[in-house]
Amino acid sequence: MCTSVSTKLDKFYFGRNLDLEYDFGDGVVLMPRDYQLKLRCGKVITRHFAVFGMGIIRDGFPLFAEGCNECGVCMAGLNFRGNAHYTRFTANGATNLAPFELIPYLLSRHASAKDARDEFLKINLVDVPFNDEMPNTPLHFHLADKDNSYTLEFGKEGALAYDNPYGVLTNNPPFPFHRDNAKLYMHLSPKQPTVTEGFTGGVGAVGLPGDYTSPSRFIKAAWLRKVQNENRELSAPDVFTLLASVAPPRYALLNEDGAQHFTRYTCCIDTENLIYYLRS
Amino acid sequence: MCTSVSTKLDKFYFGRNLDLEYDFGDGVVLMPRDYQLKLRCGKVITRHFAVFGMGIIRDGFPLFAEGCNECGVCMAGLNFRGNAHYTRFTANGATNLAPFELIPYLLSRHASAKDARDEFLKINLVDVPFNDEMPNTPLHFHLADKDNSYTLEFGKEGALAYDNPYGVLTNNPPFPFHRDNAKLYMHLSPKQPTVTEGFTGGVGAVGLPGDYTSPSRFIKAAWLRKVQNENRELSAPDVFTLLASVAPPRYALLNEDGAQHFTRYTCCIDTENLIYYLRS
Amino acid sequence: MCTSVSTKLDKFYFGRNLDLEYDFGDGVVLMPRDYQLKLRCGKVITRHFAVFGMGIIRDGFPLFAEGCNECGVCMAGLNFRGNAHYTRFTANGATNLAPFELIPYLLSRHASAKDARDEFLKINLVDVPFNDEMPNTPLHFHLADKDNSYTLEFGKEGALAYDNPYGVLTNNPPFPFHRDNAKLYMHLSPKQPTVTEGFTGGVGAVGLPGDYTSPSRFIKAAWLRKVQNENRELSAPDVFTLLASVAPPRYALLNEDGAQHFTRYTCCIDTENLIYYLRS
Amino acid sequence: MCTSVSTKLDKFYFGRNLDLEYDFGDGVVLMPRDYQLKLRCGKVITRHFAVFGMGIIRDGFPLFAEGCNECGVCMAGLNFRGNAHYTRFTANGATNLAPFELIPYLLSRHASAKDARDEFLKINLVDVPFNDEMPNTPLHFHLADKDNSYTLEFGKEGALAYDNPYGVLTNNPPFPFHRDNAKLYMHLSPKQPTVTEGFTGGVGAVGLPGDYTSPSRFIKAAWLRKVQNENRELSAPDVFTLLASVAPPRYALLNEDGAQHFTRYTCCIDTENLIYYLRS
Repeated sequence: MCTSVSTKLDKFYFGRNLDLEYDFGDGVVLMPRDYQLKLRCGKVITRHFAVFGMGIIRDGFPLFAEGCNECGVCMAGLNFRGNAHYTRFTANGATNLAPFELIPYLLSRHASAKDARDEFLKINLVDVPFNDEMPNTPLHFHLADKDNSYTLEFGKEGALAYDNPYGVLTNNPPFPFHRDNAKLYMHLSPKQPTVTEGFTGGVGAVGLPGDYTSPSRFIKAAWLRKVQNENRELSAPDVFTLLASVAPPRYALLNEDGAQHFTRYTCCIDTENLIYYLRS
Repeated sequence: MCTSVSTKLDKFYFGRNLDLEYDFGDGVVLMPRDYQLKLRCGKVITRHFAVFGMGIIRDGFPLFAEGCNECGVCMAGLNFRGNAHYTRFTANGATNLAPFELIPYLLSRHASAKDARDEFLKINLVDVPFNDEMPNTPLHFHLADKDNSYTLEFGKEGALAYDNPYGVLTNNPPFPFHRDNAKLYMHLSPKQPTVTEGFTGGVGAVGLPGDYTSPSRFIKAAWLRKVQNENRELSAPDVFTLLASVAPPRYALLNEDGAQHFTRYTCCIDTENLIYYLRS
Repeated sequence: MCTSVSTKLDKFYFGRNLDLEYDFGDGVVLMPRDYQLKLRCGKVITRHFAVFGMGIIRDGFPLFAEGCNECGVCMAGLNFRGNAHYTRFTANGATNLAPFELIPYLLSRHASAKDARDEFLKINLVDVPFNDEMPNTPLHFHLADKDNSYTLEFGKEGALAYDNPYGVLTNNPPFPFHRDNAKLYMHLSPKQPTVTEGFTGGVGAVGLPGDYTSPSRFIKAAWLRKVQNENRELSAPDVFTLLASVAPPRYALLNEDGAQHFTRYTCCIDTENLIYYLRS
Repeated sequence: MCTSVSTKLDKFYFGRNLDLEYDFGDGVVLMPRDYQLKLRCGKVITRHFAVFGMGIIRDGFPLFAEGCNECGVCMAGLNFRGNAHYTRFTANGATNLAPFELIPYLLSRHASAKDARDEFLKINLVDVPFNDEMPNTPLHFHLADKDNSYTLEFGKEGALAYDNPYGVLTNNPPFPFHRDNAKLYMHLSPKQPTVTEGFTGGVGAVGLPGDYTSPSRFIKAAWLRKVQNENRELSAPDVFTLLASVAPPRYALLNEDGAQHFTRYTCCIDTENLIYYLRS
């Protein structure tokens, strides 16, 4: 239950809410340039970009919740339970990676989101757990830089990449649902409709949902991003305000066991100056 | 376009968003105990409680947007355009006050919200401007302490006080509208409905509005407060999270001239320890 | 749980859904011109207009659910539980009527809705039951002719009449709620918004509610009436279509005991030709 | 812009609204048993079931909007603009049909919806127009009998068949969208929630949409069908009531040119007694 957003304001920003029932002990992680990145397939990547983001380091390996490389390419993993179909077997002719390797692999190697997207389509995600205590999380991914925004999913058909003009990702269902669903709401307006003799402002956006389901967070974040996007007066605090609008407060979202999902942290990356803003 | 909330968590808190098109140069104001409070009617109040809150001081007079006294009684003024009917003439047998005097007057004199409410019903609000440049703002008021929550309005019939069990106030229409309207949504649930075979959590709250009209902010804030209220695990940051959920981001709410309403500041008062938290 | 509508299409129509848990044995009732209408106060009205509508006749008295007189003035009673405050005592200086007398009394005497409204304001509704088995139903009223539309309520303050430009009435809360609430939806559009690259028509009306609460039926009926009103191409079948859109199907609306409210009949009166269309 | 529904009440019914901007001169069409059905591929079907439904006959060929065969298998075509991808070429190993042949082909040959679904998966729909004036309409299909309900689509991947437990079909987007979207609403309840101190019934279904987009019609029809389904007290009039709830009144739904979509007819088939009810 997370929300990510990529948006051009005074500069290009990438941010996300991490919403979880538990704390996984994460902190800001920096993988330096050319750090030896040892992959499960045996390959070691030695010449690469630096990547930073929120995550944990285990056995010398950076496990990123989301990251940004020194070229300003950003990528976040978001829960995709039931729809991420990692394969059981390695595939010939494809790059076989464990899902937890995907973010550092793509971000360390590519100077643009477009190139990273192209490589993703040649990747086979094999369900190799990091270790016995750490099974893979089912994820899909928001990949973006100042020029492009994509959703990457690994479904039954394998790797799928979608243009994501909304600059937003949440969770289930697969991205085509959100892409269609959001079309029902993008005409909503921050302006007062002329036909309304009003007792309150904001009437032009009546219909915007406020619950915390994945589709509703997508719609609300996509609409807010649309009304703010390309506005050179806005900056990082506005990304936080947007993400706060779709962040489940404590006790507002309970899972089957009554455990709370709530926003553990919100981050926002200034990709031009490579500044990482964090609120937790 | 503001939202206030009063809620019992680990202690009793009172908070508010101030949403405006412009900055009025406000800051934290403290009126000390027994400070000479000179009223327009000629009366001077010399023995009274201390009051603090957001506001400005002009000509020695504290103009509060909201305040809290040393007994933990809190009161906020919220825009009520078209429905605040201040009188043109003073009334015999009533306490005649200018609207800008109401918050310091009530908070400086009463140790409980109930007593302040009772006195409000004897008050006549006369439309005397602070000065030629500062006409009165049309307001209604959220008055609360740990035991009670009220809405105070001054309509065509004069002073009206309503029990406010929702602990929330926004703007138009008059409070009876919100009191009825909120009943349509309070059954929404943070839990997953049992009949739903879900792809996402949060389905039990589908129908919760997410736009920034006054009725929709009321509903969303009242619902969030209800699911959090009386939860002793929660504290001041959760009041900020709630208020962030109904705070219009920049460019998300435009008035007729295209000017933006957005949240200038959010405050939260810990009424037990008399701590004032502010985010602006 | 009813919905009424008054609307100018090719001519002026008045229609309603009667939604109830039970059948009250009603049929089309015609009170002829100058029929002796004996009131509980002892007065007998002998010179008056003819009135027809749905109802029952008991002891020679026409009990109307709604009616229309020969001048085209129409009036319907709709459930108003908890908010109709009939008085216990007769009042001096007012016309004292039993609630069940109101429709035949006003319609038999007035050639315009405006005149009937004016007289209503001089009436005191006394809670005299028709007989021991038939207590008064708490009601408010939709009164309209081709020139005017009103809501009549008898609350704690006595007789209240409101202009009703929406031409719609449902049930609780009192009319000022609906009058304000509908303003949040009247800008919704049957046209496709220009900013939407659509996969479906109808996007301009997203946000229109479809449940069967009294506020939602009011909004939907008022919006449909607005987009149809003054359209000279439309006629009686379009009034039925509108009312069908807000008619609770069986099992879609259950009361506390599990009993169903559903639409017992829908009627539409052509006030020019005095034709009564009925679907039951 | 149509809505179909298949539902078990006192018996199994299949109904639909046909919503269009124009009249296509349709009427009830009966294709008798063993009528020579000449297909474009040259094949002639001579031994088959009788089929009836709404449609037109051109050059001796029955063009059905929807139909039912004598075994009670029903099938309706609904607009699917932009998502029906009929092929340009015939395919080897598949049954090549023109889209307008599909309903009579499947219904004339199969005694169960399941068998018809199985055959559909072997069909290639080739974009052969009926004649120069009558290009193919982009369609997807609702196929159902008393035991099963399916959605049949012919997309870029070819023939796709989905189980349709909702018993409802509208229009775009492809069926998986509606299947997921409806899950957000199926918990809504015709009962009053226990936590609500109400002024109106129906609060348990707040959130149900009332606009005329394809997704909203799907949700509302699927919810009404769910609360009515398997209720042996209900019958054909209840199918009409359900369909009336999602039928766009005139002027409530305009296309880009301002032309109205509205419900041209509503039909309901009693599949046990093979009675065709029609309201137009």
